[in-house]
Amino acid sequence: MTSLELQRLLDAVRDGTVDAAAAAERISAAMQRAPFEDLGFARVDTHRELRQGFPEVILGLGKTPAQIAAIAARIVERGQPLLVTRAGLDAFAAVRERVPSATYHDQARAITLRQGETCRGTGTIVIACAGTSDLPVAEEAAVTAEMMGNKIDRLYDVGVAGIHRILSEHGRLQSAHVIIVVAGMEGALPSVVAGLVSVPVIAVPTSVGYGASFGGIAALLGMLNSCANGVAVVNIDNGFGAAAIASLINHQ
Amino acid sequence: MTSLELQRLLDAVRDGTVDAAAAAERISAAMQRAPFEDLGFARVDTHRELRQGFPEVILGLGKTPAQIAAIAARIVERGQPLLVTRAGLDAFAAVRERVPSATYHDQARAITLRQGETCRGTGTIVIACAGTSDLPVAEEAAVTAEMMGNKIDRLYDVGVAGIHRILSEHGRLQSAHVIIVVAGMEGALPSVVAGLVSVPVIAVPTSVGYGASFGGIAALLGMLNSCANGVAVVNIDNGFGAAAIASLINHQ
Amino acid sequence: MTSLELQRLLDAVRDGTVDAAAAAERISAAMQRAPFEDLGFARVDTHRELRQGFPEVILGLGKTPAQIAAIAARIVERGQPLLVTRAGLDAFAAVRERVPSATYHDQARAITLRQGETCRGTGTIVIACAGTSDLPVAEEAAVTAEMMGNKIDRLYDVGVAGIHRILSEHGRLQSAHVIIVVAGMEGALPSVVAGLVSVPVIAVPTSVGYGASFGGIAALLGMLNSCANGVAVVNIDNGFGAAAIASLINHQ
Amino acid sequence: MTSLELQRLLDAVRDGTVDAAAAAERISAAMQRAPFEDLGFARVDTHRELRQGFPEVILGLGKTPAQIAAIAARIVERGQPLLVTRAGLDAFAAVRERVPSATYHDQARAITLRQGETCRGTGTIVIACAGTSDLPVAEEAAVTAEMMGNKIDRLYDVGVAGIHRILSEHGRLQSAHVIIVVAGMEGALPSVVAGLVSVPVIAVPTSVGYGASFGGIAALLGMLNSCANGVAVVNIDNGFGAAAIASLINHQ
Amino acid sequence: MTSLELQRLLDAVRDGTVDAAAAAERISAAMQRAPFEDLGFARVDTHRELRQGFPEVILGLGKTPAQIAAIAARIVERGQPLLVTRAGLDAFAAVRERVPSATYHDQARAITLRQGETCRGTGTIVIACAGTSDLPVAEEAAVTAEMMGNKIDRLYDVGVAGIHRILSEHGRLQSAHVIIVVAGMEGALPSVVAGLVSVPVIAVPTSVGYGASFGGIAALLGMLNSCANGVAVVNIDNGFGAAAIASLINHQ
Amino acid sequence: MTSLELQRLLDAVRDGTVDAAAAAERISAAMQRAPFEDLGFARVDTHRELRQGFPEVILGLGKTPAQIAAIAARIVERGQPLLVTRAGLDAFAAVRERVPSATYHDQARAITLRQGETCRGTGTIVIACAGTSDLPVAEEAAVTAEMMGNKIDRLYDVGVAGIHRILSEHGRLQSAHVIIVVAGMEGALPSVVAGLVSVPVIAVPTSVGYGASFGGIAALLGMLNSCANGVAVVNIDNGFGAAAIASLINHQ
Amino acid sequence: MTSLELQRLLDAVRDGTVDAAAAAERISAAMQRAPFEDLGFARVDTHRELRQGFPEVILGLGKTPAQIAAIAARIVERGQPLLVTRAGLDAFAAVRERVPSATYHDQARAITLRQGETCRGTGTIVIACAGTSDLPVAEEAAVTAEMMGNKIDRLYDVGVAGIHRILSEHGRLQSAHVIIVVAGMEGALPSVVAGLVSVPVIAVPTSVGYGASFGGIAALLGMLNSCANGVAVVNIDNGFGAAAIASLINHQ
Amino acid sequence: MTSLELQRLLDAVRDGTVDAAAAAERISAAMQRAPFEDLGFARVDTHRELRQGFPEVILGLGKTPAQIAAIAARIVERGQPLLVTRAGLDAFAAVRERVPSATYHDQARAITLRQGETCRGTGTIVIACAGTSDLPVAEEAAVTAEMMGNKIDRLYDVGVAGIHRILSEHGRLQSAHVIIVVAGMEGALPSVVAGLVSVPVIAVPTSVGYGASFGGIAALLGMLNSCANGVAVVNIDNGFGAAAIASLINHQ
Repeated sequence: MTSLELQRLLDAVRDGTVDAAAAAERISAAMQRAPFEDLGFARVDTHRELRQGFPEVILGLGKTPAQIAAIAARIVERGQPLLVTRAGLDAFAAVRERVPSATYHDQARAITLRQGETCRGTGTIVIACAGTSDLPVAEEAAVTAEMMGNKIDRLYDVGVAGIHRILSEHGRLQSAHVIIVVAGMEGALPSVVAGLVSVPVIAVPTSVGYGASFGGIAALLGMLNSCANGVAVVNIDNGFGAAAIASLINHQ
Repeated sequence: MTSLELQRLLDAVRDGTVDAAAAAERISAAMQRAPFEDLGFARVDTHRELRQGFPEVILGLGKTPAQIAAIAARIVERGQPLLVTRAGLDAFAAVRERVPSATYHDQARAITLRQGETCRGTGTIVIACAGTSDLPVAEEAAVTAEMMGNKIDRLYDVGVAGIHRILSEHGRLQSAHVIIVVAGMEGALPSVVAGLVSVPVIAVPTSVGYGASFGGIAALLGMLNSCANGVAVVNIDNGFGAAAIASLINHQ
Repeated sequence: MTSLELQRLLDAVRDGTVDAAAAAERISAAMQRAPFEDLGFARVDTHRELRQGFPEVILGLGKTPAQIAAIAARIVERGQPLLVTRAGLDAFAAVRERVPSATYHDQARAITLRQGETCRGTGTIVIACAGTSDLPVAEEAAVTAEMMGNKIDRLYDVGVAGIHRILSEHGRLQSAHVIIVVAGMEGALPSVVAGLVSVPVIAVPTSVGYGASFGGIAALLGMLNSCANGVAVVNIDNGFGAAAIASLINHQ
Repeated sequence: MTSLELQRLLDAVRDGTVDAAAAAERISAAMQRAPFEDLGFARVDTHRELRQGFPEVILGLGKTPAQIAAIAARIVERGQPLLVTRAGLDAFAAVRERVPSATYHDQARAITLRQGETCRGTGTIVIACAGTSDLPVAEEAAVTAEMMGNKIDRLYDVGVAGIHRILSEHGRLQSAHVIIVVAGMEGALPSVVAGLVSVPVIAVPTSVGYGASFGGIAALLGMLNSCANGVAVVNIDNGFGAAAIASLINHQ
Repeated sequence: MTSLELQRLLDAVRDGTVDAAAAAERISAAMQRAPFEDLGFARVDTHRELRQGFPEVILGLGKTPAQIAAIAARIVERGQPLLVTRAGLDAFAAVRERVPSATYHDQARAITLRQGETCRGTGTIVIACAGTSDLPVAEEAAVTAEMMGNKIDRLYDVGVAGIHRILSEHGRLQSAHVIIVVAGMEGALPSVVAGLVSVPVIAVPTSVGYGASFGGIAALLGMLNSCANGVAVVNIDNGFGAAAIASLINHQ
Repeated sequence: MTSLELQRLLDAVRDGTVDAAAAAERISAAMQRAPFEDLGFARVDTHRELRQGFPEVILGLGKTPAQIAAIAARIVERGQPLLVTRAGLDAFAAVRERVPSATYHDQARAITLRQGETCRGTGTIVIACAGTSDLPVAEEAAVTAEMMGNKIDRLYDVGVAGIHRILSEHGRLQSAHVIIVVAGMEGALPSVVAGLVSVPVIAVPTSVGYGASFGGIAALLGMLNSCANGVAVVNIDNGFGAAAIASLINHQ
Repeated sequence: MTSLELQRLLDAVRDGTVDAAAAAERISAAMQRAPFEDLGFARVDTHRELRQGFPEVILGLGKTPAQIAAIAARIVERGQPLLVTRAGLDAFAAVRERVPSATYHDQARAITLRQGETCRGTGTIVIACAGTSDLPVAEEAAVTAEMMGNKIDRLYDVGVAGIHRILSEHGRLQSAHVIIVVAGMEGALPSVVAGLVSVPVIAVPTSVGYGASFGGIAALLGMLNSCANGVAVVNIDNGFGAAAIASLINHQ
Repeated sequence: MTSLELQRLLDAVRDGTVDAAAAAERISAAMQRAPFEDLGFARVDTHRELRQGFPEVILGLGKTPAQIAAIAARIVERGQPLLVTRAGLDAFAAVRERVPSATYHDQARAITLRQGETCRGTGTIVIACAGTSDLPVAEEAAVTAEMMGNKIDRLYDVGVAGIHRILSEHGRLQSAHVIIVVAGMEGALPSVVAGLVSVPVIAVPTSVGYGASFGGIAALLGMLNSCANGVAVVNIDNGFGAAAIASLINHQ
């Protein structure tokens, strides 16, 4: 119930065309109506686009292919763009049965379908990653950011052990509106990048590494303790999350 | 050496007014010249404003009052604004001897001096905090963001255990360009806030709490694992870092 | 040996119908008699119902299907209700050979057989969960609580990132006698729920999530550090344990 | 605005005694009015008693004596009972200036003032603790539970290394409606207690111990992994939190 | 009530000299009588010597001097030997007021008073420590073991970085009945010692060290992972605990 | 070279039957001769029985079946008893080819062959375990202790949640010379057992459990922090290690 | 662009044979030219040999066989020696298709091809390991060090539980220029070795062990806390890293 | 007993000038004689210089001033150079009473006295540190390395957030024989440095930082996971340890 609708209802009460008790009931109901659709095992958030600028995204992790496909079908039926992350090929098979035109992104492990019109972001999001092993996470970020209406520039394998690799791309870094930096191991790349530019840097630790990398904890701690200004961090391997906040920044 | 200066030097070589060997030496030197001032124990970064939009900030932690005062004096002499974080009263006493007009912010434990002109940010940065105990960190963020040219709106003591407190401020949240959310204990506030708005949320875990809060680890993990989109995290108690990236976003 | 039996034995000693030495032996034996049945690899606790209100439940984890089936058979022979948790299909196959009428609950990974009469709880236990991925744990709680004689109300996929989802179910929350809240990731849902009601909240962290969720540690810490009153926590993924204490509360 | 008030307002609109636009404005305002009082640094939750059965409690930790005294004064002015936990003598001095009749509980480090009428709980809350060193936490629980209207039975120094100490108090344990068990070191007491009774057990790990007790982590993990049914856990040293949920259970 | 006493009571019932009801009451009472003395804040374990071979020892940590003195006085009054560990000089002052003949061991931070007769152990307990900094823990073990009736041989500062230091004491190691090895840092000494002898080795990690010693965790883990046979470990800095089990082994 | 042999050699030098230079060489060689047999990838410790009372035991973990079989063959050839722990069926197959009479212990995952004469221990080693899931570790301890010449008494499934189960076996506990207690989850059983007896208790944490048991860390910490005297701990799941030290104690 | 080339270019500008603008452009370009080859998913570091003394080594972990083969082919085409670590047989199959003469080292899981001339190190690198299970890591170090031009002496299965095994090899230890010590479990071997020699010791913790070895953390902490001088540590299982720094030391 | 002495003794036995039994005793004694001096609480390692190239260094941590002074006096009496690390002013006061010419290094917290002749290292040790707060650790390394006979080049405040600071010192880095890199926070500096040079890099994490730096764990993990070759790590804040191994490398 919008403000306008409320005003009209009250006018009707005043005019006697609507009963006061009935109006009270309708207002109470509106105050409690859930802006979501209940599938039993999931509540599809139908107002997310209004509140957050992009429709609900399906995190595939921990959901069965059947559950993913059911939620995906509902989103597509509403004419909204589809994005499923952390989706295996079994999930894609289930989705394709109900959404035949969906696409699978192998490296990013994502399912997408473009529909409707997505608001375009202001500038470019540079996605830098430290090593070849960080590619899946970087690609999850890239696919997500593209779906959300952003222009992407990929800058891969520019880790700090050969510092000239990132220095030689100074120009591309400086042309970014926001930079996503993906790195495993010691997670030092965001500090170096943030020291070179004056745009926000979103750091994504990856679980790449062995021994005392502890599944990404070393990189996570490194990034949280960055001595450079302008760095904020998302969860380990969370390419999606990095793209989501980078897209918000790029749509400001 | 700017591009223009390089061009002029080469013109001079061509014209014979500058010796080729001398020019080679000058170019080599320029390629190696450090854009910082060496105080022995510290290298003051004189080009930081050019690279990152705000001059060097002094992190007081781990520095002696004498070291802080010496660096502060150099910054002020260059006409740049002064910001010292994590500064005790002893550091302020040492700074005031050399920079008499400096101000001390008690709750934020910061020393400031406004000088020169700071570029103004686009919109408002809302700083929300969950409880009264989170105030010092929130204030560090507020003082920093103000020094960096941003308009601030403080929204304090709006923790999730009384969810109506944050819901009733929905309007102020929605008017923000970027939101800093400061919270200790379970660190749940950023998830709720990010679910209500479509602007970037920078989450700051605080070391407030006891027992299994483990000096802020519980809040940090909660924020990193946020189920909401558009959240990135800075280090525990790092109000300064949150303000630094929020200011960059607000200056885009 | 009950107090009455002891009194009668002593009367018999006094009356000379029982020898004093024999009586001493019987009393000593009674003081040492184990209220359990020894299967060699397990001691089935035959008095559990007297002491704790529900017969022994079999935790399937770490037991072989043959061991589970043997213990299950003994429980069923005594006419008690059967509940096996963390049971795979191989365990169910072994149990069904000896207890053909047993039922398998797929999502909850539980085996049950209703027998005898179970004392009914006072009110309703609401089981809320944050996301679709938390369903297996929520269902383990639901199956357990139902077996223990409680009325259940399921409230699924009401995580805090879309706060309206839980707020719109305020009425159902308030009608509960006790609430079980199941959540992974940042584990913030119990804080929000406990802030809305005045009944005990039993929080169950789940191992859902990735990266820095660390198999449920993030959610566990979040729940232990809840800023809301009236929250207590059970082990990660321990839907059974949550139901057990919730049932005790509901039978007070 | 209650349902009744809403109905009356709409009747007035129908009768023409209230303007429809004015009514719309009043309804909108009611939907947004915050049920708290803003002191600037804190929002005193004036509706907590309605929502949760006991007025707001002040957690002293991380607040200045002046802040504590200001919040305490507002609570007392409203005629509500006062409870401040984790309060030092300096906080008590500040409170006593504004609330002269307040009492300080030395061992529990709590400040209280009884006012108004508190709803009495159904049965007795037994508070058991393992060792003499656990007393401060047990007393925090006891003072809190008493303020919340519960009858308390203290059972101190009954750790499991001398198992006869707890076994000899079997009768008092069985007479409880709910039991709070406070223990440091290995935290084994809740498992033993919960195995003896059929009432809910709220376990409180304490930071008592040394070496690998890690400030209560050993006890916390022990309690979370309890092999007994009917145990839920609160934060390390959180006597207040244990009493809060125990009181809710005792008021069911 | 011993077996003999039970037999005699039943004889008396048979003979009519004791009433059956009265006997029943006495037996019931005996079954419930607590073998401890309740001081309110502590239950002094008066039967410990029967059950465990040495009277109750007071762990000073977390107890007030007044509490320590009160418990100490009760132990001394019963004619038992007194041992207080982790006791500061303030605790000693309080104890000495009530037990003037008590002795304070500075390095071990222990209070003792010999009384009665202590059963002598079979052989010698060698106490080896790696460095000078481990002395307080080694001395706590030594004082405890001496109070418990054992002959001690101290072998100090024999760490593995100068392996000849321990090798040159091979003879003394081999003459031991049981060996306590105290070490901080990497905790490697127990592995080397256990490889040289065929007697049980009780390893005590100490919190000596810095950086990644993490308050003794490094030494604790090193000892738990010892590649040598015949090593068991007690808590960090727990000299008392090592002596207690070593004394039991030496009294076998 | 034993003392006796050295004396004889020097006598021979004195008598001129052995050349001084040759004797010097032989003494030097003896001082350097390795009491082990080098297989290239392993050095079989041929003097272990002399030094430690039992020949070398093969830890199967991390070795290939071929490596295990080769070492096993060398041990058997020397006429020593064979014990391989953590051995899968593939290792057993490889061993059986070279040692056809070897036996496989399924639950304990151990390979054994009795040869020669093993020194018998003094008393009985009681092996108690908390739950059915702890059986593999308890059996590794049992097989090891039996191979080392000890009499074993198994006491299984006596966890603390049904405290009567362990109390009813008080007699068997008291008849032990040393007790091994195997427990997962909260690891509370050793504290209860050690409080009932006056013999050494060797505690073995197991990785049984889920969630916050963290692969046995909870049980390990519980045991290290035991409030009972006379408890020492070995590594998680280290049934072999517990038996090794228990056997040494039982052979004193 | 070398200094010489720069001088020549400027001479040409002076002489008018090169245009000043063109020269400026060439110098700028040289300042930005990346000394690497971009394969899209990887930037092959073609100048590594100049900067670090050995060409780029491929860490197989986290790369697909196709990616490994592509990078390997480029390195071999440039005539540089090939070393791939952490490579499975599938990676070797892919590499062999493009580099038929490559060799696979089974235990070390490495692929190599010798090409060109490698600078020989000064002395011998001794590689000592504690147990048979540490062989794969020791062999990774050995293969790497050999490829880098060093003479290797292997000293395997010399753990500290049989201290005579390492003592008997004192001579070989003392003849080393640098020693790599590989050990799991408690990681004590580097301390003993470093105490015997006066050359640098590089310690490599391995993930060998179980229970509280925590995948090598115990060994890592033990090595970091070594009480001996002259020890530095590389990552868990990082045989390659140990060889890399040992080789640099051996080439000084 | 050297080889020569042994030969002479055996000649004497042969010649009858020494009794065979007496010779046996002397040889046995020599085999057991400890090359250290026993002060009761400490065994001063008098042969350390022979074995390790520098006499024993006193780690002040955990020793009393009196103990430090006593050991220091013994070292000085033997004419060896004195180095005490982690020494406060109270320790210096105690040392100066017995060694009046000793010097105190304030920032490094070290006590030194030069005596005798120290072997000079080959090249220069560069000590780089990331920030002003890392100075105490860097200075501990510098004082230690100087005492051990090395030439030092200090390169302070060259952290990676302003990457030009370290790049501009490329020449000094390349002139080093070995580089010690001291850094807190994310510990990224060693990776960048090692990528620029072909000499060994010893990395020292410092406990500088806050929040999730966890007392240096973040920096330690960053350094262990360095993506650059040629880096090995010592314990947190262990400037002494870094200098010790760097000096060994520089003396090769």
